[in-house]
Amino acid sequence: MSPEIVFDPYTRLYSEATGFIRSSAVRDLMSITGRPDIISFAGGLPFIRGLPPEEVAAVMNDVMKDNFAEALQYGATEGLESLKTGLAGVMSEEGLRSETEHILITTGSQQALDLLGRIFIDAGDPIVMEGPSYIGALGAFLANGPRVITIPLDDMGMRTDLLETELQRGATPPKFVYVVPNFHNPAGVTMSPERREHLLKLAGEFDLLVIEDNPYGLLRFEGEPYEPIASHDSRHVVYLGTLSKIVSPGIRVGWVLAPAPIIEKVTTLKQSADLCSSSLNQMFAEAYLARGLWKKNLEILVPIYRSRRDAMLEALGEHFPAEAHWTNPQGGLFIWVTLPEYLDTGKMLPLAIEQKVAYVPGDAFYADGTGANNMRLNFSYPSEAQISEGVESLGKVIRKEMDLYHSLGLDR
Amino acid sequence: MSPEIVFDPYTRLYSEATGFIRSSAVRDLMSITGRPDIISFAGGLPFIRGLPPEEVAAVMNDVMKDNFAEALQYGATEGLESLKTGLAGVMSEEGLRSETEHILITTGSQQALDLLGRIFIDAGDPIVMEGPSYIGALGAFLANGPRVITIPLDDMGMRTDLLETELQRGATPPKFVYVVPNFHNPAGVTMSPERREHLLKLAGEFDLLVIEDNPYGLLRFEGEPYEPIASHDSRHVVYLGTLSKIVSPGIRVGWVLAPAPIIEKVTTLKQSADLCSSSLNQMFAEAYLARGLWKKNLEILVPIYRSRRDAMLEALGEHFPAEAHWTNPQGGLFIWVTLPEYLDTGKMLPLAIEQKVAYVPGDAFYADGTGANNMRLNFSYPSEAQISEGVESLGKVIRKEMDLYHSLGLDR
Repeated sequence: MSPEIVFDPYTRLYSEATGFIRSSAVRDLMSITGRPDIISFAGGLPFIRGLPPEEVAAVMNDVMKDNFAEALQYGATEGLESLKTGLAGVMSEEGLRSETEHILITTGSQQALDLLGRIFIDAGDPIVMEGPSYIGALGAFLANGPRVITIPLDDMGMRTDLLETELQRGATPPKFVYVVPNFHNPAGVTMSPERREHLLKLAGEFDLLVIEDNPYGLLRFEGEPYEPIASHDSRHVVYLGTLSKIVSPGIRVGWVLAPAPIIEKVTTLKQSADLCSSSLNQMFAEAYLARGLWKKNLEILVPIYRSRRDAMLEALGEHFPAEAHWTNPQGGLFIWVTLPEYLDTGKMLPLAIEQKVAYVPGDAFYADGTGANNMRLNFSYPSEAQISEGVESLGKVIRKEMDLYHSLGLDR
Repeated sequence: MSPEIVFDPYTRLYSEATGFIRSSAVRDLMSITGRPDIISFAGGLPFIRGLPPEEVAAVMNDVMKDNFAEALQYGATEGLESLKTGLAGVMSEEGLRSETEHILITTGSQQALDLLGRIFIDAGDPIVMEGPSYIGALGAFLANGPRVITIPLDDMGMRTDLLETELQRGATPPKFVYVVPNFHNPAGVTMSPERREHLLKLAGEFDLLVIEDNPYGLLRFEGEPYEPIASHDSRHVVYLGTLSKIVSPGIRVGWVLAPAPIIEKVTTLKQSADLCSSSLNQMFAEAYLARGLWKKNLEILVPIYRSRRDAMLEALGEHFPAEAHWTNPQGGLFIWVTLPEYLDTGKMLPLAIEQKVAYVPGDAFYADGTGANNMRLNFSYPSEAQISEGVESLGKVIRKEMDLYHSLGLDR
């Protein structure tokens, strides 16, 4: 952790853009939620310990044996061609066809969000995001000072009807519309085929760019998968993928699939952002994908996450008050809980931590500071036993808080 | 390579900042200089094949055995504490003491340049750079639209007397002064102790921030090392280090050592830039440093680079015309050649490539497009035989070009 800053003598040197940067609530929570005595639903970590270590070690061993010098050397900014072929294979699993020259490999998909924010957003520019939206996208985009138009989600994803209204009356067209269509982070919901179609219709009509962020699509526990939005319109959609949830976040391998001019712009900016992504990690990823081990990972992780989601849904039903609602995700890592409007999950968090349980307060997922009566719960990392115990504790904290508000007459 | 863009239908969507981004000449050259029939002096690659593969593989093997799950998981944005301790050890080798809470681990030191550019520069802000300067720093800083004040170098580094004159008459103080004091890229020169002292005196007097970029300091072939500027003033200096030249650029591990408020700002921005640097690579680096293997690498690489530098100096003396001058680096990777003023190394490059030899034209290292009669030659990567052959070819190209200019009366 960085030391606490009392007085900053460098203030006069900072750029105006520095004023836009906001620290993520998740990072601020890390020092607390990392404590072993806390049951944390605050993270978004894949369950790496579920994967077979010896297979990972064997792949790395072969990279070292076969490609030692290339793995330790600089690589092209665009990324490793053979890895792009592997990533095209991953995308085709969800029905998305691609050419490798339309792919840029990034240092995690967070870097893709950062680069896209920088090439599209000037301070004051309108962009459209879902409410709630992914915290990392908010961080990356807000750093450029946009005006965020928030379109609410429901159980079928972004309310595209409200987007249409907004577009019809909007003076300045938005720079892009950012969506997480599958097993949304934080909301857990999946955009329906009708909404996807409507979004594409609007994209065509208003000549909009859609950024489709799909980290979780392959983590489906049940039901039929929907094809990525990008598979129906390559001209209006920039697609983001990552190996963080199907291989490892520790290798920082993500990618952008986009029209050629956008790939060119993003690549040029990436060059000054970090020259190239790690060759070692790219070669590891390439070998890992080539052996099909990511499919094996899904076979391992999907049943574990499904059971944990079930455990969480069951515990929520048992321990949370009747006034609370939550989403029922068909995949991914997160459940989104909505509490009575008068509750503030940010203010409640210290009480929860006192009871050894943590979550992310809902307002962190909105550009405008709304969402304070929501919380994001992660079920991929804690065990089923921890989930039961943690949700029970959290239920008690909520009930106690509700009782307090009720006794003070503040509950309406 | 990205496909060629003829018409870009997305132009209306790009940010103003996109207009500042410039593609590095080095990247543009890559597709040519990577050809096996070309002797390339254009790169800046360490000679990884000189290192013992089995040691690298053994370190990685142990990381996988001991820390598999942590290595593949997300890490803290700040970086791995145990690696910071190792990096503090590397810095102490050059006489620079540090506390780990003042260190941020970055995805190569290129990311540090990018983050620093973003937290300090608004469009139009003055910054001071050396002339010539590191191409990656130019790329990162120019992306924010600064006004670059170029202070020329001589054989003793930045002309701090000229900097003083500039500061005395300057209306707006510069946001920072960026220097590469040891074995400069591209110039090969090292800043003298007197100039370092003068720079620090100016920093105190004008309350300037100095960014000291030191990727090559440990690659010294002869003579006495000078202590880093940061070792004499931690308040006015932000220090950048990297493992790219002493371990591997393929792992993308660099770092910033800075005052606490700056570390805090840079860390917050890094979070939205890529969340965290690769845990796998950080753990590999930590184990590699802990075993002292980086010192062994220096024992291997320094004699190789010294011989290659000698081979290049000898070949330059033999094959280049009397009108050419070049620097005599005591370490690092690069020699900087100055040709008669009427020559343009950018225009000459296709002729050189025809003769199967490549370099980076000098104007790529200046913000203002000057330096066209210079070229950067790399001696760390090509073999001694390639150096002799390549410099001979290049000498012929230059002489032919000079003859042409002479015959046309354009040589003065």
